[in-house]
Amino acid sequence: MDEPVNVADYEELARARLDPGAYGYYVGGANDELTLRDNVEAYRRWQLRPRVLRDVGSPSTAATVLGEEVALPVLVAPVAYQRAAHPQGELGMAEGARAAGTIMCLSTFATTSPADVAATGVKRWFQLYVPRNEELGRELCRQAAELGFGALVVTVDLPVSGRRERDHRSGWTLPARLEIPSVGLRGLKPHEFVREMSPSVTWDDVGSFAAEAGLPVILKGILTAEDALRAREAGVDGIVVSNHGGRQVDGAVASLDALVEVRDALPEAVVLMDGGIRCAADVVKAMALGADAVLLGRPYAYALAVGGQRGVEELIQNLMAEIDLTLALAGGHSIRELDRSWLTRV
Amino acid sequence: MDEPVNVADYEELARARLDPGAYGYYVGGANDELTLRDNVEAYRRWQLRPRVLRDVGSPSTAATVLGEEVALPVLVAPVAYQRAAHPQGELGMAEGARAAGTIMCLSTFATTSPADVAATGVKRWFQLYVPRNEELGRELCRQAAELGFGALVVTVDLPVSGRRERDHRSGWTLPARLEIPSVGLRGLKPHEFVREMSPSVTWDDVGSFAAEAGLPVILKGILTAEDALRAREAGVDGIVVSNHGGRQVDGAVASLDALVEVRDALPEAVVLMDGGIRCAADVVKAMALGADAVLLGRPYAYALAVGGQRGVEELIQNLMAEIDLTLALAGGHSIRELDRSWLTRV
Amino acid sequence: MDEPVNVADYEELARARLDPGAYGYYVGGANDELTLRDNVEAYRRWQLRPRVLRDVGSPSTAATVLGEEVALPVLVAPVAYQRAAHPQGELGMAEGARAAGTIMCLSTFATTSPADVAATGVKRWFQLYVPRNEELGRELCRQAAELGFGALVVTVDLPVSGRRERDHRSGWTLPARLEIPSVGLRGLKPHEFVREMSPSVTWDDVGSFAAEAGLPVILKGILTAEDALRAREAGVDGIVVSNHGGRQVDGAVASLDALVEVRDALPEAVVLMDGGIRCAADVVKAMALGADAVLLGRPYAYALAVGGQRGVEELIQNLMAEIDLTLALAGGHSIRELDRSWLTRV
Amino acid sequence: MDEPVNVADYEELARARLDPGAYGYYVGGANDELTLRDNVEAYRRWQLRPRVLRDVGSPSTAATVLGEEVALPVLVAPVAYQRAAHPQGELGMAEGARAAGTIMCLSTFATTSPADVAATGVKRWFQLYVPRNEELGRELCRQAAELGFGALVVTVDLPVSGRRERDHRSGWTLPARLEIPSVGLRGLKPHEFVREMSPSVTWDDVGSFAAEAGLPVILKGILTAEDALRAREAGVDGIVVSNHGGRQVDGAVASLDALVEVRDALPEAVVLMDGGIRCAADVVKAMALGADAVLLGRPYAYALAVGGQRGVEELIQNLMAEIDLTLALAGGHSIRELDRSWLTRV
Repeated sequence: MDEPVNVADYEELARARLDPGAYGYYVGGANDELTLRDNVEAYRRWQLRPRVLRDVGSPSTAATVLGEEVALPVLVAPVAYQRAAHPQGELGMAEGARAAGTIMCLSTFATTSPADVAATGVKRWFQLYVPRNEELGRELCRQAAELGFGALVVTVDLPVSGRRERDHRSGWTLPARLEIPSVGLRGLKPHEFVREMSPSVTWDDVGSFAAEAGLPVILKGILTAEDALRAREAGVDGIVVSNHGGRQVDGAVASLDALVEVRDALPEAVVLMDGGIRCAADVVKAMALGADAVLLGRPYAYALAVGGQRGVEELIQNLMAEIDLTLALAGGHSIRELDRSWLTRV
Repeated sequence: MDEPVNVADYEELARARLDPGAYGYYVGGANDELTLRDNVEAYRRWQLRPRVLRDVGSPSTAATVLGEEVALPVLVAPVAYQRAAHPQGELGMAEGARAAGTIMCLSTFATTSPADVAATGVKRWFQLYVPRNEELGRELCRQAAELGFGALVVTVDLPVSGRRERDHRSGWTLPARLEIPSVGLRGLKPHEFVREMSPSVTWDDVGSFAAEAGLPVILKGILTAEDALRAREAGVDGIVVSNHGGRQVDGAVASLDALVEVRDALPEAVVLMDGGIRCAADVVKAMALGADAVLLGRPYAYALAVGGQRGVEELIQNLMAEIDLTLALAGGHSIRELDRSWLTRV
Repeated sequence: MDEPVNVADYEELARARLDPGAYGYYVGGANDELTLRDNVEAYRRWQLRPRVLRDVGSPSTAATVLGEEVALPVLVAPVAYQRAAHPQGELGMAEGARAAGTIMCLSTFATTSPADVAATGVKRWFQLYVPRNEELGRELCRQAAELGFGALVVTVDLPVSGRRERDHRSGWTLPARLEIPSVGLRGLKPHEFVREMSPSVTWDDVGSFAAEAGLPVILKGILTAEDALRAREAGVDGIVVSNHGGRQVDGAVASLDALVEVRDALPEAVVLMDGGIRCAADVVKAMALGADAVLLGRPYAYALAVGGQRGVEELIQNLMAEIDLTLALAGGHSIRELDRSWLTRV
Repeated sequence: MDEPVNVADYEELARARLDPGAYGYYVGGANDELTLRDNVEAYRRWQLRPRVLRDVGSPSTAATVLGEEVALPVLVAPVAYQRAAHPQGELGMAEGARAAGTIMCLSTFATTSPADVAATGVKRWFQLYVPRNEELGRELCRQAAELGFGALVVTVDLPVSGRRERDHRSGWTLPARLEIPSVGLRGLKPHEFVREMSPSVTWDDVGSFAAEAGLPVILKGILTAEDALRAREAGVDGIVVSNHGGRQVDGAVASLDALVEVRDALPEAVVLMDGGIRCAADVVKAMALGADAVLLGRPYAYALAVGGQRGVEELIQNLMAEIDLTLALAGGHSIRELDRSWLTRV
């Protein structure tokens, strides 16, 4: 392959470059990977209804998410352990995201410190796994606010780790040279890091967070209308519809299907989503079904693995160009204007 | 393979260890095995709706079935000829079930006597194929009651044997060293054992059983609302929705689909089911659709073949851990609380 | 393969024994063979709802078709050129059908004379392609009546031959040693025989036939409610819902789907069907959806190719045993009693 | 292969004869080619309802499109660069279309001048990509009118080129020996030719065209009821429902599905369609769903590649014979009489 043309190419190149255990960690899902696959298939169940003769010129892919302008509504999902994908790790991802004008969500399980990522100047949110150690949790929030992270993305669908059979079989362990600065740990397997996190966060805790944080709070991992309504009652600033990329409950509803239910329940709230997006048309479909923005995980990890900062930048630029193209061909002046009338289901 | 991680692994290991004829007996179904496959596919037609932030801690997998407490609502289905799978046979299965805290249904076609199984102390039910010899039938019931079996599971979907093409091709015969103590036979092919059973049991007979048994009577093999209602009229204590693992009528409705119809007709009755369950999420889906408990057959047979008592215990413990995990991730405090709101169908 | 266990086995054995051109003639359908495959798939879209505890004993597979008793409602479809499948040809088929107690429909394109087939004593119907030569047509009808054929099955879906790409590629020609006695032709390709038949038969002609025949008239090849109603107006005695085994219009509705529509339109008429039946459960499903009987073509041709008269007899006996078994397992006392309550569609 | 029997054969032969880059250009679609495949699959979702005993004789495939008589309602779509498929290029296509009695749409990106094509005497329409150079656009229209082209087919779904990954990977460039006379360019890649066209044509421009053209104006590339209604308001004479053969928006609705929506919105307008047609039954289905005629692209390109003028003529004659046959077998006297009652959807 001369150069990657689409996400499948990036994945293939990443597989060739990564340690099989690390590759398995990124690519895999829970159990039989049914939800992992259905996340992707869900986009095939909707078809675009292109409009013509609208002189859309170069359509705008710009969006505003929680008051933050982004060049495209495709944020970097909080992928863990990025130095296991490429020596540049989170710094490469951050530089790529900064150059391309999108927001990076830094994982609690990053292999780079929040301070170092903040120093790149990237627009940034901090993804929080609530630690068992409550004081550490408060410290992480304080630090995030001080370092200019624009929001706390509290992951709520990982009280414990899902069952990742690939990891089980490979026995993959984060290389001992890599530390997780936010939690001060190293040399563990993925599910062992999760064990240091609190399995018992509740809606009340989230309410407290929302009240005390000093930062907007976004809950990541909502899949039902009931929980979306509950999140609104809890006073959070937004939610991410997500099944954790098919890595937690195998057999869970696909993200895109859940997005429809959630947006129906909360027509006005800030609703983001992730899961299964592999190309520009998928982004467009998610936006048309009501997402304010999407998060992309695996494709960014593959691009980082393939080319570090340059790979990430390239992927974002390709994606932006493809979204632009899809909008132009579908007759959209702006990604903000999309609604369900752009889709049909045969 | 180092060690089995899921049921597919157990099946693969069992295939390597078993005589091909015996493996074919366990793995196969009737005719073209359409129902065998649809039993499994039926679970794919429902998706889980996980709930978050409920601090479920370690959710309870415990359940009560006919007044009996079980550690998990996954009973051992009455698999025949277990000594053909492993030298420990039904004793290994019983010890495994006892250790793990679930009920074992002992088959009329067991290769171990009810007394020997009772001696293990496992919670036990006795599965009855009504013999042509009526006196023998009464004797088996008396014996079951005396030996502390907690219920009679009367199989009603095997008036004659289904057409198992794998058995036909392999010509597999129960090894002559193995006896079926309950019926005093040995050295036959599976369908030849069935010929000794009565093909003409009726609803009236079942009513008599229910009246005379001294034990709770459960009918196994119901697939329609009409028969479920009839069972209630007959005064039985419970039913098992089952198509005999796809081994009788090929083309019959999948068990999970039949469960929905039956539970709609009988909202209050004791309704168990079996068929197609291969992982914890399948158990959760069956419980959410109204099962009081499920029976598992083939996976236990594979685990017995692979590791005897230890294999069975391991499988149950893995399954319990996975159910626990699925509940925790789906936000369920207990497997008892599940209802249809936990599922969707896209 | 030791001996054939199911229709797929017969087909495989037939392929091994037949000249590739002849095999292609029997197995193939029109164009891309979409309807050929959908005929089979249509049965998979319905599931059986077995009933239990009905003491069905040995259920009756007997049926009455147009006043004729048959041991099972599975007639021999009018397959052409049977001596190309086996030296015994139509005589072998007739002896097999007679021994097993079903009706044979003799094709106009038989390679054996109606008189010779009549001499076997088989219950028989005569399938008529209306020849261009009107006098010959009248002669064939007179002859059929004199020779004790019980009905005229007038094929109405072959004004011209469908496009059979397999025949086109193979160039298969009926071996010159074989004659078609009814039309006095030999040594042609299948579509060349068809050219001798009238492409312009109309409803009026059919009405005349029905009036003049002296024999019951059945129209074979109806696929719509509109034409079924028209057939009733024309005064015919019955219809066969059929798409000619997927050999005429590729993309046509599957026979089983058409049966539902036709039976809804004609609740009282004699309605038979053919197409896609490969096992006993398919027969049961067709009967439950309203067929009075079914015709089976390819499987009989394969059985004839494999074993001549003995093969046909074996296939029918196997099929009867399997229908009997399916009824027993599904709780049916008789194939006559089946209705749509025996099926569901998930 | 002795000779091509169906479109798949033509495609296979074309692949063997063409430069891989040129073959990729013709066969490929946008991105993951989802819409390319769904265009074909859409026909499988409808089944034909054949009618019998109608003495259709040799049914008429003739149709009238915009007042022009055609032997069959299957026009030659405006395929670009035909000399890259065969040395005869557009002249071969024109001669084939003329001989068979259908209309050829000549592409703006033809490798033969409109005057040379006009000289063949073929019934012809001119497909217009509106150039950035407005004067050139007016000149092309004037020229088309003077040269006897019967309509302007204005393509409205290509403001910019879709993303064709096959072309991207192959780097295919139109051989430098070939010129595009209408726009005076040579030696470019497909998307580079498109860059010379205006990306900003609007409904107002189309209205002006319709008013000034002196020729009937047909808009090609409509996929929604909304745009179809808009086209009527703009005063155009007809539309072509099309997703550009799956080459523009990957994930767009299949053409046949869009046809249903468009015809529902515009019961009286001239509505043509293209996309996914591979056999006569597909043509019949499109006509039954309301198309006045269809355009065929890739199959004609393959036929041209395989046999030049003779190949095109053969393909059209085969197609006409097959349509004739399908009508005869389905009981249609004429392709004009088809409506939705000829179809069902199971």
